Amino acid sequence: MCKTFEKLQAFLDKTMAFSTARSLFEWDEQTLAPLEASEYTSKVIGIISDEYWKSIINDDVRKLLKKLQDDKEQNELTDIEKGIVKELSKTYEQLESIPPEEYREFNELTSISSRKWQKAKNENNYSEFAPYLSKIIEFKKNFAKYRVKKDEKPYDILLRDFEECFTMKDLDIFFDKVKSEIIPLLKTISSLDDTIDKSYNYVKYDIDKQKSFCHFLSSYIGFNHNRGVIAESAHPFTLNLHNHDVRITNHYIKDNLESAIFSIIHECGHALYEMNIDNSITQTLVGCGASMGMHESQSRFYENVIGRSQAFWEPIYGKLVDTYPEQLKSISLDQFIKGINKSGPSLIRTEADELSYPIHIIIRYEIEKMIFNDEVTVDELPDVWKQKYQEYMGVTPPNDAMGILQDTHWSWGEFGYFPSYAIGSAIAAQLYYHIKDTMPFEDYLKVGNLIPIGEYLRDKIHKHGATMNTNQILKAVTGEEFKADYYVKYLKEKYEMIYNL
Amino acid sequence: MCKTFEKLQAFLDKTMAFSTARSLFEWDEQTLAPLEASEYTSKVIGIISDEYWKSIINDDVRKLLKKLQDDKEQNELTDIEKGIVKELSKTYEQLESIPPEEYREFNELTSISSRKWQKAKNENNYSEFAPYLSKIIEFKKNFAKYRVKKDEKPYDILLRDFEECFTMKDLDIFFDKVKSEIIPLLKTISSLDDTIDKSYNYVKYDIDKQKSFCHFLSSYIGFNHNRGVIAESAHPFTLNLHNHDVRITNHYIKDNLESAIFSIIHECGHALYEMNIDNSITQTLVGCGASMGMHESQSRFYENVIGRSQAFWEPIYGKLVDTYPEQLKSISLDQFIKGINKSGPSLIRTEADELSYPIHIIIRYEIEKMIFNDEVTVDELPDVWKQKYQEYMGVTPPNDAMGILQDTHWSWGEFGYFPSYAIGSAIAAQLYYHIKDTMPFEDYLKVGNLIPIGEYLRDKIHKHGATMNTNQILKAVTGEEFKADYYVKYLKEKYEMIYNL
Repeated sequence: MCKTFEKLQAFLDKTMAFSTARSLFEWDEQTLAPLEASEYTSKVIGIISDEYWKSIINDDVRKLLKKLQDDKEQNELTDIEKGIVKELSKTYEQLESIPPEEYREFNELTSISSRKWQKAKNENNYSEFAPYLSKIIEFKKNFAKYRVKKDEKPYDILLRDFEECFTMKDLDIFFDKVKSEIIPLLKTISSLDDTIDKSYNYVKYDIDKQKSFCHFLSSYIGFNHNRGVIAESAHPFTLNLHNHDVRITNHYIKDNLESAIFSIIHECGHALYEMNIDNSITQTLVGCGASMGMHESQSRFYENVIGRSQAFWEPIYGKLVDTYPEQLKSISLDQFIKGINKSGPSLIRTEADELSYPIHIIIRYEIEKMIFNDEVTVDELPDVWKQKYQEYMGVTPPNDAMGILQDTHWSWGEFGYFPSYAIGSAIAAQLYYHIKDTMPFEDYLKVGNLIPIGEYLRDKIHKHGATMNTNQILKAVTGEEFKADYYVKYLKEKYEMIYNL
Repeated sequence: MCKTFEKLQAFLDKTMAFSTARSLFEWDEQTLAPLEASEYTSKVIGIISDEYWKSIINDDVRKLLKKLQDDKEQNELTDIEKGIVKELSKTYEQLESIPPEEYREFNELTSISSRKWQKAKNENNYSEFAPYLSKIIEFKKNFAKYRVKKDEKPYDILLRDFEECFTMKDLDIFFDKVKSEIIPLLKTISSLDDTIDKSYNYVKYDIDKQKSFCHFLSSYIGFNHNRGVIAESAHPFTLNLHNHDVRITNHYIKDNLESAIFSIIHECGHALYEMNIDNSITQTLVGCGASMGMHESQSRFYENVIGRSQAFWEPIYGKLVDTYPEQLKSISLDQFIKGINKSGPSLIRTEADELSYPIHIIIRYEIEKMIFNDEVTVDELPDVWKQKYQEYMGVTPPNDAMGILQDTHWSWGEFGYFPSYAIGSAIAAQLYYHIKDTMPFEDYLKVGNLIPIGEYLRDKIHKHGATMNTNQILKAVTGEEFKADYYVKYLKEKYEMIYNL
């Protein structure tokens, strides 16, 4: 083993331990911790976050990293070690550029602002959140400025933190394509008579039965219950301590059958990615998904490409009907498939159908671009939001809670994150066309055999973690880098069929 | 604020943070973590434990502590700060005396040996555990030796770590008294005809109803659900992150109504102690119970003195009958009270009644003394165990799983812990006689008003945390230091009434 890397390992181990501890505290807060705990527990998390920071940003690591970036040392490294050095360099660059004092202030601000956002949303009062949003944006602009090299735009820096393969230039091309092809399709569909009756979805569904059906679904898809657990939280999410401890949450709504079902399938997609990370890289900086976009591609592949297909439901729809005979006995599989794919303009991103979903993302992307190009003030945001929804979606939010205040991301300072959702959906489509050519995909689904699909994703994508980036993975798997065409093709084919266009 | 103490504070904060993180990992492992997680998570816990150790044992802390033990500096300290320095000195002495390498080896050993113990117990195979027990004892003997000062006995060192007010000399007096008075009483009772029919307790009790009744009990007793949560685990326990995050677990057995009920009352006693710690000392080294014995006194006060009394059940027994009308409609309150206090010789400590319980403790204490006085070998332990049970309890364990292998404590290296259980019971009795004289204790219970009792315990004991030791607390509350007489008196009065002697 390379001596220099060996020295680095002690720091990496600490970084891993502190970051795992932070994850456990986060999990605990979202799923279990009592109401009044956070004021005191946040002190603990603050100290552990400081220690995390110090385990990376220090003279020893700086020197070791510099040495390891040397050609001679690089030759001594394995591919995994090279990947780890690359990831550490990225994190190092990101953290080191920010003065410690500012970093602490920012963390304090976001822990308050996320609560302020929740309150403002509940009370539909944007002006309560606006001053915090202003400060967050100011911080993020500064953070980006610290790292900007000549010719770079600040927003590109933020995008890169979530997905290194996409700049504004790439996203503009991607989103222009989606806009030009999907917005017209969405308008066509919303001009049709409403022939898909989905009222069955909104009657009463016993929660315990929802839970046990979702548990069945998780195993059916391949979630390994010896290496993971399912809990409940307000918003479903996936979090892992390492590849042998992958946790997902779900939420159950009495009068909405779909919500829990597609949430569990979505989170299982994330979870399989993490569970399938190879043991050789677990608990290292590359022992995680390649990027936010890549991660989202797996959750959306399972949720949409697999989970909303007729083939997937053929072997198991009967079980769902047996679970809820009264509610579903007169609903044919055909009607159910149309129901779970019903499309239309929508106001809320998280409840949007597959077709209108990317439009929600594009609106956020365009607004974030405006913010970081200094083309809009915080006070103007609610109106810009409404105008864009009217223009692209043909609907206007009746209030800010359903408009500018709907997402939590900005309250945490997460700018540049949203595009990953659309990138993920597009990658899922690109993978779909490739996998269809590689194996009898539909036939497998129809007989309830998801193993070959899961193993393919495991071997081609999951197990490699972040040793490759998004485009390297796509190139290795499909022979091509990211290509938006597949996404547009997929959506058009699918929705033309659903709506007999 | 004292400058020296201020410098120490940075280390104390880290110690607190690492120890809280360890607690959360422990909680998680016992209640939720998936089966295969531990192999990887233990690496994280190992690193955080190392950091905990390093945050205490280092040259800076050594110097600061030395300085703070100075008379001049002591004068500058508040009482709380003095208490913190005293606690830190104790922990420092305990940890520093052990060579780091040995400390690590011991921790590795106990993480294996606890699993070996579980396996040996399941398979009723003492020889599988014996070699590990030997090694643990060897470590503990060395650890004690490192700290022993002249005239001290090694076992006294171990006892002191759990309860600083009790040496072997004190315990010998305490236990001799219990033995001479309680063993004859136990023998008398077991010679009587069995007139207490408790078969009602062993029929089927719906688990969901058990859960909701136990939830009711927890609130009834005063458990604040905004500052605590209840989960499930194999063995009930209490764990806290701080005074605003106190967690208890329970277990539910289908054909044993009592088990969950008295477990929840017991754990609530522990939980109230932690929840009532004053905010001025939370997250400090004195923001915890005064000692293991003091802690156990609170759980046993609630479980036995309150929870097994007729007065406690008078206002709520009807609710229990309403919950299980079929099972309990023909069981009078009188019969129920006799049932939950039924006594007899027993083999398993955790299932023992209040009267035979201390005998279990005395047996363990005597065996531990023999071990650390080099009067017995590990191979001889099973037989010594059996002989003592026969002698004191009149019954012999049919196998080692129900004998020497029944408790987990030794597999963790916890020698000197058991006496705390009996000390706790005895303190509970001492407090009982004092509180009875202070307020209309029974009348409060009879009208379901536990608030004055809870507030009394909070103000006199709980809120002070570990700023006083066991005897200082008892002296301040009852006017006397620990006195075993009350315990014997309490048990005799209670059981003579139950059995009409």
